[in-house]
Amino acid sequence: MLLHLSTWLEVEAYLSRSQGLIIPIGSTEQHGPTGLIGTDAICAEAIARGIGEATQAIVAPTINVGMALHHTAFPGSISLRPSTLMLVIRDSLMSLVRAGFTKFFFVNGHGGNIATLKAAFSETYLDLANLNLPQSDRVQCRLANWFMCGSVYGLAKSLYGDQEGSHATPSEVALTQYLHPEAIKQAPLSPQVASGQPIYGAIDFRRRYSDGRMGSNPALATPEHGKQFYDLAVKELSEGYLKFLSED
Amino acid sequence: MLLHLSTWLEVEAYLSRSQGLIIPIGSTEQHGPTGLIGTDAICAEAIARGIGEATQAIVAPTINVGMALHHTAFPGSISLRPSTLMLVIRDSLMSLVRAGFTKFFFVNGHGGNIATLKAAFSETYLDLANLNLPQSDRVQCRLANWFMCGSVYGLAKSLYGDQEGSHATPSEVALTQYLHPEAIKQAPLSPQVASGQPIYGAIDFRRRYSDGRMGSNPALATPEHGKQFYDLAVKELSEGYLKFLSED
Amino acid sequence: MLLHLSTWLEVEAYLSRSQGLIIPIGSTEQHGPTGLIGTDAICAEAIARGIGEATQAIVAPTINVGMALHHTAFPGSISLRPSTLMLVIRDSLMSLVRAGFTKFFFVNGHGGNIATLKAAFSETYLDLANLNLPQSDRVQCRLANWFMCGSVYGLAKSLYGDQEGSHATPSEVALTQYLHPEAIKQAPLSPQVASGQPIYGAIDFRRRYSDGRMGSNPALATPEHGKQFYDLAVKELSEGYLKFLSED
Amino acid sequence: MLLHLSTWLEVEAYLSRSQGLIIPIGSTEQHGPTGLIGTDAICAEAIARGIGEATQAIVAPTINVGMALHHTAFPGSISLRPSTLMLVIRDSLMSLVRAGFTKFFFVNGHGGNIATLKAAFSETYLDLANLNLPQSDRVQCRLANWFMCGSVYGLAKSLYGDQEGSHATPSEVALTQYLHPEAIKQAPLSPQVASGQPIYGAIDFRRRYSDGRMGSNPALATPEHGKQFYDLAVKELSEGYLKFLSED
Amino acid sequence: MLLHLSTWLEVEAYLSRSQGLIIPIGSTEQHGPTGLIGTDAICAEAIARGIGEATQAIVAPTINVGMALHHTAFPGSISLRPSTLMLVIRDSLMSLVRAGFTKFFFVNGHGGNIATLKAAFSETYLDLANLNLPQSDRVQCRLANWFMCGSVYGLAKSLYGDQEGSHATPSEVALTQYLHPEAIKQAPLSPQVASGQPIYGAIDFRRRYSDGRMGSNPALATPEHGKQFYDLAVKELSEGYLKFLSED
Amino acid sequence: MLLHLSTWLEVEAYLSRSQGLIIPIGSTEQHGPTGLIGTDAICAEAIARGIGEATQAIVAPTINVGMALHHTAFPGSISLRPSTLMLVIRDSLMSLVRAGFTKFFFVNGHGGNIATLKAAFSETYLDLANLNLPQSDRVQCRLANWFMCGSVYGLAKSLYGDQEGSHATPSEVALTQYLHPEAIKQAPLSPQVASGQPIYGAIDFRRRYSDGRMGSNPALATPEHGKQFYDLAVKELSEGYLKFLSED
Repeated sequence: MLLHLSTWLEVEAYLSRSQGLIIPIGSTEQHGPTGLIGTDAICAEAIARGIGEATQAIVAPTINVGMALHHTAFPGSISLRPSTLMLVIRDSLMSLVRAGFTKFFFVNGHGGNIATLKAAFSETYLDLANLNLPQSDRVQCRLANWFMCGSVYGLAKSLYGDQEGSHATPSEVALTQYLHPEAIKQAPLSPQVASGQPIYGAIDFRRRYSDGRMGSNPALATPEHGKQFYDLAVKELSEGYLKFLSED
Repeated sequence: MLLHLSTWLEVEAYLSRSQGLIIPIGSTEQHGPTGLIGTDAICAEAIARGIGEATQAIVAPTINVGMALHHTAFPGSISLRPSTLMLVIRDSLMSLVRAGFTKFFFVNGHGGNIATLKAAFSETYLDLANLNLPQSDRVQCRLANWFMCGSVYGLAKSLYGDQEGSHATPSEVALTQYLHPEAIKQAPLSPQVASGQPIYGAIDFRRRYSDGRMGSNPALATPEHGKQFYDLAVKELSEGYLKFLSED
Repeated sequence: MLLHLSTWLEVEAYLSRSQGLIIPIGSTEQHGPTGLIGTDAICAEAIARGIGEATQAIVAPTINVGMALHHTAFPGSISLRPSTLMLVIRDSLMSLVRAGFTKFFFVNGHGGNIATLKAAFSETYLDLANLNLPQSDRVQCRLANWFMCGSVYGLAKSLYGDQEGSHATPSEVALTQYLHPEAIKQAPLSPQVASGQPIYGAIDFRRRYSDGRMGSNPALATPEHGKQFYDLAVKELSEGYLKFLSED
Repeated sequence: MLLHLSTWLEVEAYLSRSQGLIIPIGSTEQHGPTGLIGTDAICAEAIARGIGEATQAIVAPTINVGMALHHTAFPGSISLRPSTLMLVIRDSLMSLVRAGFTKFFFVNGHGGNIATLKAAFSETYLDLANLNLPQSDRVQCRLANWFMCGSVYGLAKSLYGDQEGSHATPSEVALTQYLHPEAIKQAPLSPQVASGQPIYGAIDFRRRYSDGRMGSNPALATPEHGKQFYDLAVKELSEGYLKFLSED
Repeated sequence: MLLHLSTWLEVEAYLSRSQGLIIPIGSTEQHGPTGLIGTDAICAEAIARGIGEATQAIVAPTINVGMALHHTAFPGSISLRPSTLMLVIRDSLMSLVRAGFTKFFFVNGHGGNIATLKAAFSETYLDLANLNLPQSDRVQCRLANWFMCGSVYGLAKSLYGDQEGSHATPSEVALTQYLHPEAIKQAPLSPQVASGQPIYGAIDFRRRYSDGRMGSNPALATPEHGKQFYDLAVKELSEGYLKFLSED
Repeated sequence: MLLHLSTWLEVEAYLSRSQGLIIPIGSTEQHGPTGLIGTDAICAEAIARGIGEATQAIVAPTINVGMALHHTAFPGSISLRPSTLMLVIRDSLMSLVRAGFTKFFFVNGHGGNIATLKAAFSETYLDLANLNLPQSDRVQCRLANWFMCGSVYGLAKSLYGDQEGSHATPSEVALTQYLHPEAIKQAPLSPQVASGQPIYGAIDFRRRYSDGRMGSNPALATPEHGKQFYDLAVKELSEGYLKFLSED
């Protein structure tokens, strides 16, 4: 059930049986010479919808732009500042808690969002407590990073070994190839690729990682791999969502 | 050309021939008993993509959640505060201007976004001036509300007359029916519908407009009408975008 | 009744019979070679006071500085950022709502304030709802732009036709001449005046509108015209205020 | 020379001979049973204009609402939060520094503004330094509290002794009587008046100072005293302004 | 009793007998060629702990960094902006008020903090009122500047006369010598030292006060003097704290 | 070398040979019935100073209050909101970068700070880039959590096994016992201790973790263990700091 394809009456009915909501969050940032700028949002959205189907849960519209400041020296990247993303999360949850939602399951496609999301959850819990809504102290946010699922990680290691890298990875590229076969890209990929460097500001990032990849070889990706990743992530996170719902 | 399905190398190449970007912005809010919560985002996204195809322009990911505070007493609505939406616009444009974009064409699906977007543009121009980027004083934002196109407005009046209303209108519902025939909804619609009331806070709004409609009769909508609206909006706004690009 | 010339005891007494307040808001910005920098505040203040007298309503002190960022490349202009003006409105209304005021009638003298004021009203309604004051969901803000009154607009068109323009207009200059005959200015006015250009940042604005006027010929203004505009605006807006008070 | 009655061309000419600006700032707050709510703005504005005339300096529009949170339990008081007032000062100075002003002389009518103004000046100096304008490190703000002038203070003590008090004082009431003889108020004043209590929040303030006065007997005020205060303040602060201008 | 060396159970027990808390606040800023960068925090912390011992009060951890923007052109200085320091104070007090503390006694070591602290207190009272906690309108903040104690000031004048100056004073240097004899510094001190100059931005400050001192001769300081200052300040402020606790 | 015990001349000299700075950051929060509220700040400060001695680096004053919102239902806890802590970090780094520091090594004692610190670093890199300082894109922040050192973690597991838990751990309690033997606390510790529960808001946290511990048995701690932890952490992090300095 997709929130944007529902009516408020349908949401009202849903709330009488569940207070859970799945929120996909991605990023709009460079993913190397062959990776799509929307990779993180595309993956998060598809997996979130898969979970929604599997668990009869509502899926919110995707937060397409996240915290990707370190990628902004590559054209096409768009980033919110962490403080802005925190406000986006806060405002969104405020609207939803007032309506009765209390269990928020964020399906996240971007490692760079994690710190900001955690900070946002903390700040939101405080703001909710200050409002003194009846359900304020029952609101729970859970962060589910699909690329950190055990099953996903295991498959990536077995398929790609060290060439999985940590950005513009073959696993995420494979998933976008599965989801958007019409947008599979070709570009020369230098076999030399920087790896293991720390991340600081945007200009420094591009200096270190000259084509945007971080230790990865996305040429290994195939749409068939992508389907496997999709299935594993949806399965593992559907279980995670149902467990989250059942917890006190 | 969709930004999220492009690579940064493709964006770099694009920027050497155009500095224009189309940004769809919608809202996630109740649209009456039969309108989709995502109506405004769905319409803006589809029309923006149509313009992008017609003009060879890049289309950014859709801003799905806008300024809909007055709708938040209906479940499923999500809103940013105006001040947060202003920061979202500011941060996004900052990323893009640094990359070389200077002409931003916002395809907007929600009347409630207009004031905040205008305020955001003003604030962003100042922030850009403070950065002293070479292109700072050449950045231009244009707001294009598809539902205010002369051709669209004319068709709506001819098809629906006074029953067009001003929220959950048959024209926007028709457009979503055309785009999402799988999500055409049925629900009883009272022939009595409030109209012409002012808009204040969320609770007051629901008190005045008890089922969420504002003077509209969305039962008049058909997918065929939707296609007509789509074609008119894409045509008129494509011309608007090209004119915008050509202006000094 | 002017708030600044009243005592708190008088306000307390007033509140027992009315919860309405008239708030003039202007701007401090260039108005071409012959227009006063304070034009928008002067006009709004005078008309607001006229309405106050006609309706026995309290008039708050004038907000002299508004949102005029696009004028700040001309010396003497002062502007708040939209986000700051929103906080000014929010804070002011919070003080007043706590005291018992619930109906706020903004008499506005500057088009550039409109978007920010609308955004501020939305944000304030939310903040009030979060406070859970008994009257929170009864607070109403109304924006009354004197220059958009039907009667004013009609007279301007009949007196000046196309030479009314849209900034440093003869109508507003006439009104300041009526109110401040000691400050009627003379300066050469080029017959060539830019018109119909869009508005972006401050430097761009001055590049387009080199002497600050936007399509207007303020040399047509006379103090006698000013009195006519004053009378029409006070009459029309007094009726508007009383209607606003009487509405649910 | 009043900024709001000037044109931008006149300001441009002024800037070629002086970079100084006088900014009156008051407050909108209860002043006891007989004091005007606008007392602090009225006094600051009149004195600032007197200084402007005496020194050929431009006087900016008055900041009518200041930091008066502790007075907001009395109806009619309006206050900005300190953080908001800081932004108002910052934004205003930013506009003016860009135009070439560098010497800002604040004529202040309200003790409660002092801390916030000082904090605002510090923050503004930093923001200006971050902009790297040529004149950034030459900008100077000076705070001139008319009621703390030696000559004013001396007269108040000689006329009223301990009955001067510290809020709704006879000296400020006298000044408003001189400036607005049409608004001289009568109300019973209890001879018992709280004094010397500390200031915390708004509700606490009203509990301690039940009619709004702080140790004062405004019944001693006369318009003639008011003229004396006016003359002394204008003289002393005009000298202060000229000295400020002449300093490095 | 030091908060950081206590357990929450001990704090809970304390709160049943007292709602007072002593909060030391200093600064991290240059103090001339021989003064310690931590002077203001060191002094405030030691005196606060002395008061805590004398009065059986809990002492909070020291706020080591304050508002010292004007010192930041000297290396080693760290400053919060006033608006940030206000948030730090606000957040901290919010945590503490929720736990039951209502009387906050700030022992301050830095003149530059005073304005910001006062502004922060005002803003916090409002935020507390908005939360509607039972104790909201009983919260009291008191600012105690140790260097402004009558007894301290008197001793400084008698020991150093005009050479006390106003920054990097012998009195505060003496106190740090008493507290940190291992860190007594030697450096040439020009007998010419600027004095009486106003304070604007950081670069301007260093231009005026070239070695960081303001009219002071810290070479006069001795650890023995430091002990005297310590004893006087602890005695006078302990009485002040007890009086504060006893007040309504 | 401790910043607060240095003079600005000494810092200036230091900067000519190193641009590194060690910044301890802790928290002020409950640590169970026997743990000190200042545990995280005490540990971070001591280890940071140990590193400073071992590497001849300057150590900044400790940030005593961090992000501990989830602990604030236990009295004595003080927390900044994440957004406030981000501003504290930002402002502090801005001061220091202007002075010439570029390598910031945060010795952190609190897991709850990690997300906010990472977000703060990202935001600060952007703000520095916007300032266009020469060294802007060379600024590097490194987060060093002493409790996550391999050597520390190994010892904790070997000494305490599962009873190490994740808050109010015997390892951190041991370290405070070593550093503050005068403040070793005794209190009954239930053998039943909650463990593995998620963390949401403050009230929820206390409901789940009734005495504040998270799966830990701090009764196992001894001062001797504390010395071992101290030595291991200082050794490992000193190497880490030197490596950080040497990196590009």
